[in-house]
Amino acid sequence: MAPDYAARRRRLLEDMATPEDSALYVTNPVDVRWLTGFTGVTSQSGQVMVGSVAQFLITDNRYTERARADCPDIEVYIPARPPMVSIMARLAEAGVKHVLVDESIATVAGLRRLAEVSAGHGIAVDAMTFTLPTLRMDKDEYEIAALRRACELSDAALEVALQRLHVGMSEKQFAFILESAMVELGADGRAFESIVAAGPHSAIPHHSPTDRPIERGDLLKIDFGALADGYHADETRTFVIGPPSPWQVEIHAAVAAAQKTGRDALRAGVTLGEVDAAVRAVLADVGYLDAFIHGLGHGVGLQIHEEPFFAPNGAGILAAGQAVTIEPGVYLPGKGGVRIEDTLVVGTTDAESLTTTPRELRELC
Amino acid sequence: MAPDYAARRRRLLEDMATPEDSALYVTNPVDVRWLTGFTGVTSQSGQVMVGSVAQFLITDNRYTERARADCPDIEVYIPARPPMVSIMARLAEAGVKHVLVDESIATVAGLRRLAEVSAGHGIAVDAMTFTLPTLRMDKDEYEIAALRRACELSDAALEVALQRLHVGMSEKQFAFILESAMVELGADGRAFESIVAAGPHSAIPHHSPTDRPIERGDLLKIDFGALADGYHADETRTFVIGPPSPWQVEIHAAVAAAQKTGRDALRAGVTLGEVDAAVRAVLADVGYLDAFIHGLGHGVGLQIHEEPFFAPNGAGILAAGQAVTIEPGVYLPGKGGVRIEDTLVVGTTDAESLTTTPRELRELC
Repeated sequence: MAPDYAARRRRLLEDMATPEDSALYVTNPVDVRWLTGFTGVTSQSGQVMVGSVAQFLITDNRYTERARADCPDIEVYIPARPPMVSIMARLAEAGVKHVLVDESIATVAGLRRLAEVSAGHGIAVDAMTFTLPTLRMDKDEYEIAALRRACELSDAALEVALQRLHVGMSEKQFAFILESAMVELGADGRAFESIVAAGPHSAIPHHSPTDRPIERGDLLKIDFGALADGYHADETRTFVIGPPSPWQVEIHAAVAAAQKTGRDALRAGVTLGEVDAAVRAVLADVGYLDAFIHGLGHGVGLQIHEEPFFAPNGAGILAAGQAVTIEPGVYLPGKGGVRIEDTLVVGTTDAESLTTTPRELRELC
Repeated sequence: MAPDYAARRRRLLEDMATPEDSALYVTNPVDVRWLTGFTGVTSQSGQVMVGSVAQFLITDNRYTERARADCPDIEVYIPARPPMVSIMARLAEAGVKHVLVDESIATVAGLRRLAEVSAGHGIAVDAMTFTLPTLRMDKDEYEIAALRRACELSDAALEVALQRLHVGMSEKQFAFILESAMVELGADGRAFESIVAAGPHSAIPHHSPTDRPIERGDLLKIDFGALADGYHADETRTFVIGPPSPWQVEIHAAVAAAQKTGRDALRAGVTLGEVDAAVRAVLADVGYLDAFIHGLGHGVGLQIHEEPFFAPNGAGILAAGQAVTIEPGVYLPGKGGVRIEDTLVVGTTDAESLTTTPRELRELC
């Protein structure tokens, strides 16, 4: 079973109401992958031209075989050098009069160079807003299956790694064990650099693992995720090493209650701001709202952070099939912090959490 | 010992001859890291404003502590929301009249949004070519030490992984063992996704590891590198599993001779094109020039691929202290391929290879 990439390209053309004599020049690697299945993608190695009269994947010699294997439903085009001249000549021959680039992706210099070449072929170049980030919000079955696999691998790897944890191990060592477990279990890699933050480090929302040993009495905050078929899991759990202090129990309970409220509020039809407000109200009630110093969550898929983004007063309306994280946290500088995060898929009446590791304050070691 | 980041910022201002009332708004993560030492950098998490009358690192709440630890010699500024309005107000107060952005980095939409905000503060925004990629070509002692460490870790990890290799292991498994060895030995991670290509896969210049087992008679091409303090090693070796066939010996010898010629040609004062031509002449002599289907090499540092880039007729002149790869290859589709690559530092009369794993055709297993 493979995704219907041609259908995704048709949806893009319809959504953007692209005129017949135009072609969308897509260069953002995750957009290229979503539209074609091409996995060899950096912005240098692959782009896709999506139009009614011309449609092809552009790559170079290094990637010919991979592109043909990945993309059976679109022509793989290796332009002669200089590539942009060949591409424009080919588009002109197909009757394309306008090439459109994504104003959020194209650089100022890139747009100018493109316009210089295209002018010689009677083609105009314009920058505009591409709707790809919005289209990519709605996940199909194939994407949800990949996210589910990434999340299952994350849960399983965390359990394996926790079995191997011992007091005195460094944050870096634990991160390595966790990430190794992901790959051992079948992940394609890590979705992002794991955050392993022990003791006072747990109060730093984004902390890179250090040589600091994990000690009794520490809160241990782990923000991590596996990568599967290009899709990212994003999960955070906070544990305690040995019996917790009262303040640790208190902030963990506050975050757990807020996070549950967020998960419970998630369903098709609610706005991003409504979910955000529900979570903040719980933290405000217990006096910890000021200690929650980042966003509530974000879309997740081929990118670890993608549309939609939760924000106070966020007007966007959630729809069934969208994948998002819910990740409130409370951070007490110099002392410690707690964050709990799940990757969820929005349904019509509720949401399913794809990450399922228990969320209560577990004592380790 | 830490790099003199303030000196790098002064060099940038001098090199670009930036007027007193201007500030360079640097957003490219590796540029920000090179100018400040800030390691928490994605384009969202940190930018730096470099001017004569205003100079500060911009980040957000999530990164305050990390930024202060990383960057003792520049002010860490957390703008109030919306951040760009706060930043422009602050610049206006300091007397800045022009903000300059890098036309190779700024997107069309980003430049427009910036101009909209800045206009309200009497500040003009212009896009221009930043010379950072050129300045970053010349590595200081600190950078060469980091590259040396990354290369030593790569060599050592390869040796460890080869000891663990056995016939029947998959490309993916070997890649995992190799990358794990890097981290075990002290690397911060891998510099890029390792290429482990066995048998006919070795004919694919950029090949992602698969489940294909490594078998007797295979060429085994391994393109990999460790990451140390943000600096990337880049190394390729090609081995044979068991005794080689005559054609394997022949293409390996051709590539080894070409690669040695490239290393020997490398010194301050030669052009990129001269080195390129020397290598291609060796391959042409033995009839394999058409089978060398990619560039000869590239600069390496905070990015895995950075300035300078080798190319036929490349006019750029190499200087002492620059770090580059030399990586010719010969690829016979369906059969196999060989690439040999080192990371080198250019000297006044020769070049030092920081990667030192023997280059002859070694029989494994």
